[in-house]
Amino acid sequence: MKSYKEMSKEELQAEREVLLKRVEEFRAMNLSLNMTRGKPAPDQLDMSNHMYDNLSDTGFKSEDGSDTRNYGVPTGLPEVKRLFADILRTSADHIYIGNGSSLNLMFDSIMRAMVFGEHDSPKPWSQVEGRKWLCPVPGYDRHFKVTETCGFELIPVPLKEDGPDMDIVEELVKDPLVLGMWNVPCYTNPDGYVYSEEVCKRLASMKTAAPDFRLYWDNAYCVHHLYNDEAKQGRLPDILGLCEEAGNPSRVYEFASTSKITFASAGISCIACNEENYKRAVKLIGVQTIGANKVNQLAHIRLIPDIDALKAHMSKHADKIRPKFELTLDILDKELTGTGAATWHKPLGGYFISVFTVPGTAKDVVARCNELGVAFTPAGATYPYGNDPDDSNIRVAPSFPTLEDINKAVEVFSVCVKLSAVEKFLSI
Amino acid sequence: MKSYKEMSKEELQAEREVLLKRVEEFRAMNLSLNMTRGKPAPDQLDMSNHMYDNLSDTGFKSEDGSDTRNYGVPTGLPEVKRLFADILRTSADHIYIGNGSSLNLMFDSIMRAMVFGEHDSPKPWSQVEGRKWLCPVPGYDRHFKVTETCGFELIPVPLKEDGPDMDIVEELVKDPLVLGMWNVPCYTNPDGYVYSEEVCKRLASMKTAAPDFRLYWDNAYCVHHLYNDEAKQGRLPDILGLCEEAGNPSRVYEFASTSKITFASAGISCIACNEENYKRAVKLIGVQTIGANKVNQLAHIRLIPDIDALKAHMSKHADKIRPKFELTLDILDKELTGTGAATWHKPLGGYFISVFTVPGTAKDVVARCNELGVAFTPAGATYPYGNDPDDSNIRVAPSFPTLEDINKAVEVFSVCVKLSAVEKFLSI
Repeated sequence: MKSYKEMSKEELQAEREVLLKRVEEFRAMNLSLNMTRGKPAPDQLDMSNHMYDNLSDTGFKSEDGSDTRNYGVPTGLPEVKRLFADILRTSADHIYIGNGSSLNLMFDSIMRAMVFGEHDSPKPWSQVEGRKWLCPVPGYDRHFKVTETCGFELIPVPLKEDGPDMDIVEELVKDPLVLGMWNVPCYTNPDGYVYSEEVCKRLASMKTAAPDFRLYWDNAYCVHHLYNDEAKQGRLPDILGLCEEAGNPSRVYEFASTSKITFASAGISCIACNEENYKRAVKLIGVQTIGANKVNQLAHIRLIPDIDALKAHMSKHADKIRPKFELTLDILDKELTGTGAATWHKPLGGYFISVFTVPGTAKDVVARCNELGVAFTPAGATYPYGNDPDDSNIRVAPSFPTLEDINKAVEVFSVCVKLSAVEKFLSI
Repeated sequence: MKSYKEMSKEELQAEREVLLKRVEEFRAMNLSLNMTRGKPAPDQLDMSNHMYDNLSDTGFKSEDGSDTRNYGVPTGLPEVKRLFADILRTSADHIYIGNGSSLNLMFDSIMRAMVFGEHDSPKPWSQVEGRKWLCPVPGYDRHFKVTETCGFELIPVPLKEDGPDMDIVEELVKDPLVLGMWNVPCYTNPDGYVYSEEVCKRLASMKTAAPDFRLYWDNAYCVHHLYNDEAKQGRLPDILGLCEEAGNPSRVYEFASTSKITFASAGISCIACNEENYKRAVKLIGVQTIGANKVNQLAHIRLIPDIDALKAHMSKHADKIRPKFELTLDILDKELTGTGAATWHKPLGGYFISVFTVPGTAKDVVARCNELGVAFTPAGATYPYGNDPDDSNIRVAPSFPTLEDINKAVEVFSVCVKLSAVEKFLSI
């Protein structure tokens, strides 16, 4: 077919009529569908339902014999540290196990730096006037909100298929006010890109003006592959090891959680870092809390005792979630390929599909969908301050809805993308 | 018997010989006993073992039908808020439910004030040079450590049978650098005193120079009575209501947890406050985390569905823990009454017995006990900076050891208290 760009005004008008007719058909359906958040579906959650069933039979004891119900073992059960070390392909020496939300660990880590500084900080970050934070875009709105709330100026950095544009990053970190950078290195949120080894090495070895610059390495999806074929799975180098080798051992805090492995609201999480960062963090965390929920740690390790059990478990998640991604991509392909109304990358893991509409139309598309009863993440959410300068990116989250709902929602979405594009071209 | 003070040098020498002989008998026993921490005993923890057993049968749904396994309901399940409101005898309107550690909620609350200030703060607390915090003494070491770590000068305030010495408190809060005060108002840690209604009212209504002064009201033991006779139970007025009535509605953050109701490492906790504090806290907590573990909240409400169930549950705790307190108090009474070597208050709830030895001997007593294989909380721990100016207070924690262990440990303790006293009097 002809792309919209190549169409005459008359052809665009004709296409518009066709699309408007479809919109009216959708309206008559009184839809109420939701594609907003990267939530696991109930059948994924069901896989972990029996996690707690036999804890009482077996006396709530961890492998070292400690009673997980009582105080003690404040940094987490050793067997759980080992599992996370295997997940992150790093060592278990400096891993702290937290409660369900890894975002919570990130926020707290930045708050510690705000009030007390890092071990290599000239002063606490709250005293650094004009502090800045690098944000690969499109990215995760909750990350951006943390550093925005803590008074950082958010600096967008373009994200490419192999990770953030390193030529730009290397320039930006020459500014001593740039104190850190968000990263979702494996299956970026929302594009689903995987950082290349080259990009990881440049991040680990680049010269930063701030001595206390930190990479926040949110490995949220490192075992969340859509395909069981290992050749199709994203695989990252051990960033802690790379930073160590590059002579910047304190550069990175790495995070992970089981929010999308077991239960989104009731999982376990971790920070992994080098010895100096760990000592400082654990000392302050020791003032903050008597420790995270160890019974939940035990429940997790009973359900998923090791990395092989984890791989088997994640493969079942993939079987449930893959058809939803494939259906979404099929509809996008059928409806949009060739029109020039949108581009997208086909992710091999993670929880999102990132669609770039014709610039200047993303907000319009989301508004049209909402009006038809189909909720999408607000356009702009994937950019600092909710401001997508191109008004182009929309995050699609296919994990939670049923196939039937996806079928309808993505059709509605595609028609709205096209309609907005057609009207944009007509208005030029 | 004659008190040590009244004894002649010869009488003291004779007493010393008797005590030294007993010490040698203890030494021969090669004891290894621990009376350091207020930990629940295994048989107390066993009472909650079946909390998780039927969660999967009933679909993990809260009363409003939401799936506790997934994201959502970030401030906590409504039924759990109601339970905590009943525990605190306050309203459920402004309660946030956290994970297991209420200390964590306190630390985070102070960190928010440090970085962002309170809603009525002239500036963030981290920018208040020379900031101070009131600490009733003896008190809880972990409280003191939080404000010490956050750079507050800790100001001790004598604790009396009816609460902190309010004449002194009312003077101290005329200093605008005094930004807050720790309180364990019901069964103070370690003395087991209960704040009187009069003291609560004075705290609620006193004039503070700092507009953003905050009471941290750690109601850790408000349902932790040793006796089921209601006349013997500590009962506090609703401090939130008192502050509201006094025209200081934002003055207090109240905290509680189930650490000593269900599992010490795996409970749930809450902050209760007024609307303005709540709005500000929840907005920032919403940036910090996707919310606390709701499956655990559901497990708790299934085990303890309402305040009557809670009272029945706590009464069983009392039955297990009361004999340990009574045994401890009996031995102290038998060994020490009349000697003048120590004084103590007989608590009606909480987790501790606070013993005041002859001034200048507490460290010596704990060292002697340790040397005999009986561990006690380090002397001084109940004072800011670990510094008891009288070197007199020792916190005894009878909850965790068995009756048999308590029997021996408290005997050893009493003998060491007497020996240190005798030697002190001999040295004068």
